[in-house]
Amino acid sequence: MLGSTGSIGTRTLEVARHLGNHVQVVALAAGHNTTLLSHQISEFHPRLYYSLHPDAMEAGGSISASLLDIVTDEAVDTVVIATSGNAGLEPTLVALRNGKTVLLANKEVLVMAGALVMAASRESGSLLVPVDSEHSALWQCLRGESGGVRRLLLTASGGPFHHYSGEQLINITPDMALAHPVWSMGQKVTIDSATLMNKGLEVIEARWLFDTPFERIDILVHPDCIVHSLVEFVDGTIKAQLSQPDMALPIQYALSYPDRMEGFLPPLDWDTIRTLTFEPVDDKRFPCLQLARDAGEAGMTLPAVLCGADEVAVSLFLQGQIGFADISTVIGRTIEAHQPVANPDLSQIFEADDWARRFATDYRTHRWFTSPGISKTAQEEE
Amino acid sequence: MLGSTGSIGTRTLEVARHLGNHVQVVALAAGHNTTLLSHQISEFHPRLYYSLHPDAMEAGGSISASLLDIVTDEAVDTVVIATSGNAGLEPTLVALRNGKTVLLANKEVLVMAGALVMAASRESGSLLVPVDSEHSALWQCLRGESGGVRRLLLTASGGPFHHYSGEQLINITPDMALAHPVWSMGQKVTIDSATLMNKGLEVIEARWLFDTPFERIDILVHPDCIVHSLVEFVDGTIKAQLSQPDMALPIQYALSYPDRMEGFLPPLDWDTIRTLTFEPVDDKRFPCLQLARDAGEAGMTLPAVLCGADEVAVSLFLQGQIGFADISTVIGRTIEAHQPVANPDLSQIFEADDWARRFATDYRTHRWFTSPGISKTAQEEE
Repeated sequence: MLGSTGSIGTRTLEVARHLGNHVQVVALAAGHNTTLLSHQISEFHPRLYYSLHPDAMEAGGSISASLLDIVTDEAVDTVVIATSGNAGLEPTLVALRNGKTVLLANKEVLVMAGALVMAASRESGSLLVPVDSEHSALWQCLRGESGGVRRLLLTASGGPFHHYSGEQLINITPDMALAHPVWSMGQKVTIDSATLMNKGLEVIEARWLFDTPFERIDILVHPDCIVHSLVEFVDGTIKAQLSQPDMALPIQYALSYPDRMEGFLPPLDWDTIRTLTFEPVDDKRFPCLQLARDAGEAGMTLPAVLCGADEVAVSLFLQGQIGFADISTVIGRTIEAHQPVANPDLSQIFEADDWARRFATDYRTHRWFTSPGISKTAQEEE
Repeated sequence: MLGSTGSIGTRTLEVARHLGNHVQVVALAAGHNTTLLSHQISEFHPRLYYSLHPDAMEAGGSISASLLDIVTDEAVDTVVIATSGNAGLEPTLVALRNGKTVLLANKEVLVMAGALVMAASRESGSLLVPVDSEHSALWQCLRGESGGVRRLLLTASGGPFHHYSGEQLINITPDMALAHPVWSMGQKVTIDSATLMNKGLEVIEARWLFDTPFERIDILVHPDCIVHSLVEFVDGTIKAQLSQPDMALPIQYALSYPDRMEGFLPPLDWDTIRTLTFEPVDDKRFPCLQLARDAGEAGMTLPAVLCGADEVAVSLFLQGQIGFADISTVIGRTIEAHQPVANPDLSQIFEADDWARRFATDYRTHRWFTSPGISKTAQEEE
């Protein structure tokens, strides 16, 4: 598992603990959180581990190894990519090319390099399993079906600001944005969820995972977070997947697939649910959604630029440098300024991502926020 | 198709018309409605037809044949059982034993003779396809899954009287009961839907179709009739099937299976749906549900008695002979008086059904309605 100390990583290890003998942890990899990684190693006794600071670690009998050594190790049959940002990209490609089943929880991998990843899976016959709750739901609804799909309906919680006016959206603070009503996630994902960029990235992922054109992928706001996504078939039938909003469920399904094993969460309690609500999504108030769709549809290096610029913009917002409504401006302007490269290879994808990060970080020099539509926060700072 | 002039039969022909060349109508069978059957024959030109009154028919070049000739005809690969009551039982068994795929829309077939029907399907390898919206939904949710089912959740509209008190239920008239809020169905099914006997019969059907014990089949009241049923898996995941409440959808799925073909109904419109509501079912106010579960669980000839007594009780209610709340009394008392036969063959099942009809029709001689709990309607008549 790559990214064992993050929110998906720790939940995956809880599922692994629950599944007992069905899962054997061969290797754990993490970045800076050496304390938690040491704890995980002492519980799961992986043969291999990777750490950014191997010298500062208690690793028992585990052997320090590189990420690529880990994902090509003979004892590994399944690689869980629970990293964030672009860190999971190369290991995913290498794992797939080496015949490993890849459980993918890292959105940017498919967004940045969907064509390369799907080609690697196709050419080696390696299974790519979605761990995101929405894509797991779609994958479960498509199980056993043989075509006839009219459209994919990704559900969105709508984020905490779904009912905010354009004016209200401008004054959102990082603290407000970090308080997600249902899912407990990392900071970056929580802000992406509030801007709906998260959903935009998921649309691009769905396009690759299920080979479905963008015009047949729609979003349905569902604040209850019980229905995780739906598939509409050409005959008018819809299949939906429902469960508690807890990543343990898609993680366990991915680990136990094609079997289903006893879960450790209580089942949905219909006495307390009573109603499920759905609303259309408003692209206008949440421009990140359209930015993602456009970048995904144009392809080339644009989705990598989308990811890089988004990471910088979210970080600037969390540091109080720009306002909530400026996030989409930073991303949009960076995309506009990019010279896209067609059919990029991995290094060109990383270059585009790097360029976007540098360009977006220099947002002050571009003087974007002296133009009309500027947010108050950024305006006052200028 | 057997029962071509009933509500399922006519809808099936509309679907067949829509599917065009994908479906060829080889034979049509109906009872008394010779006018409609003649119209159907002139449109679909079946080679064979069956009518209770062949001499009173315009049948063009179609040849009058017996039901058993029809379901064993070489040109027939799929038999649609759209009859009602016990009429579909023998043709279903004969069709399955002759290797025909059977599309089953006649509830009583599985309720009365589930063991015989499932054995016929198993032994010949013939596919038995549910056409009921709930069972089609379960079958679709189970498609491609390999076990791991915790329970089946049949949805129920709750009928028009779901929120009535016990007192209010006593004063329901036939006209009130025939006004179903969502589904447009035959009279018998509409009353069964109001008493929830319909749902009780569906529980017994599900027990046979999906080889699932009664304690793992539950009911969820869902007045919107959009979610047609749900499957809960051991991992805590639920799959649901949703669509317009229109029999054209399960009929088309059954006809096109395993493919899905373009439907002719508009898809679900999420802008107008907005909420889906669910409520627990109240077995106490709707005793027919428990009567059905008990008869199903006890097995033997008791489910046949349940069906026979229900048909008489509904008919007595529609004629104004007994009150709404007396329907369950007539059925329950008839079941109590029955001497069940274990592992019945077809003739013993029919005998039990006959006995139940005679016994229930004689309800006045049993003086059930002089006891406490008697309904006002029946009391005044006595």
